[in-house]
Amino acid sequence: MEKNLQIFGTRAIIEAIEAGKEIDKVYLQRGLTNNLTSELNTLIKRNGIQTSFVPIEKLNKLTQKNHQGAVATISPITFHDFEELVIKTIESGQNPLFLLLDQLSDVRNFGAIIRTAACTGVHGIIIPKKGGAPINADTVKTSAGAAFQVPIAKVDHLKDAIYYLQGSGVQVVAATEKTNTTIYTVDITKPTAIVMGSEDRGVSGGILKISDHLASLPMQGNIASLNVSVACGALLYEVVRQRS
Amino acid sequence: MEKNLQIFGTRAIIEAIEAGKEIDKVYLQRGLTNNLTSELNTLIKRNGIQTSFVPIEKLNKLTQKNHQGAVATISPITFHDFEELVIKTIESGQNPLFLLLDQLSDVRNFGAIIRTAACTGVHGIIIPKKGGAPINADTVKTSAGAAFQVPIAKVDHLKDAIYYLQGSGVQVVAATEKTNTTIYTVDITKPTAIVMGSEDRGVSGGILKISDHLASLPMQGNIASLNVSVACGALLYEVVRQRS
Repeated sequence: MEKNLQIFGTRAIIEAIEAGKEIDKVYLQRGLTNNLTSELNTLIKRNGIQTSFVPIEKLNKLTQKNHQGAVATISPITFHDFEELVIKTIESGQNPLFLLLDQLSDVRNFGAIIRTAACTGVHGIIIPKKGGAPINADTVKTSAGAAFQVPIAKVDHLKDAIYYLQGSGVQVVAATEKTNTTIYTVDITKPTAIVMGSEDRGVSGGILKISDHLASLPMQGNIASLNVSVACGALLYEVVRQRS
Repeated sequence: MEKNLQIFGTRAIIEAIEAGKEIDKVYLQRGLTNNLTSELNTLIKRNGIQTSFVPIEKLNKLTQKNHQGAVATISPITFHDFEELVIKTIESGQNPLFLLLDQLSDVRNFGAIIRTAACTGVHGIIIPKKGGAPINADTVKTSAGAAFQVPIAKVDHLKDAIYYLQGSGVQVVAATEKTNTTIYTVDITKPTAIVMGSEDRGVSGGILKISDHLASLPMQGNIASLNVSVACGALLYEVVRQRS
């Protein structure tokens, strides 16, 4: 499976981007410059694709094929357009439930969250273009196939997505331990988007500031926090309970 | 860390068992018989310790030390006595909440569940002596240290543990998709033990039969089931919500 998810060689990657393929990330050999690589760099910047400049040994590890200093990983899923997804959900007459993931880094957590989102009827998962866990073969496997079912949209900035959701009548609830308000006291029968943070730092301060509600899960004992996919499950099932 | 969790050599393992060390599993070289190994075998049977007869290559992989055909893995945690744990919890005046794990096999799921149990005030986790995921260094790591905080008890048979709990006034709620009763309609403000099943087969039929309640989480979409640690989190947080 992994092999189908890679493209090797500068020219092949350029063609893939121009053909509109979902490139997840491009690995480029550090220090390599020629006409083709600068053409690729221009395309990468224009399309906001994640890039990593690495030593040739890293590229040789990624593939045994003739990579000419460039390897791209392509996404196994097709991403949805964020605004279209929001509009379509609202127009469908369903009670919107979105999930925003702010810099989640572990692919297994990501997969488990997608799986939970499918089971709880989430209408779409919104992730930032840069910095989060990729959707790769491991994500798809951990999601038990749910990655092909739940619409996922990538946005340049989560903050802009939040403003858009709020403008569309969707309240934004950020999951954080930095509040005494538990999720049980927030009315999530309204159109809602839930924001989950990264494993180590939680939801970023800028997003906490613009969210409509901060909500926590009650915590006992001395353990700092729940696993993020477990916390996400408890929160999404509270939405299901309140709406049932 | 792993190295501290192994004992090598037949004599050393015999001494460890006699000293009451928590042996997780003993790996014995297939076909090896002498006075010492039969002494060890007798001790292993008497103490109900899990054993695996393996080729010498497997033992050489486990350790580079002189193992003489026997390697034991010891548990990083000290187990609690099941009946004492139940009695102590009831006598403390707290509203009992126990968690029974029926043949859970993945150590990362096990660790995440222990972590959730700590955050939701579970008074004890009860696992069968044979067949479940071990408590090893990975379990402890995934539990974020919670394995040292939540009491864990091993029992010969989960069914006997269930009868004992019921006899002590604790209702047993089995988590299963094979019911239309959702957890939201079960009164879990009473003293409760929740049973979670294995990743592939769920709670075993014999246990479903003797449980006081079968309870499910509502499921949408075509995904067969939730990750077991996520489902466990949603159920335990419903206990927290109902009791708060």
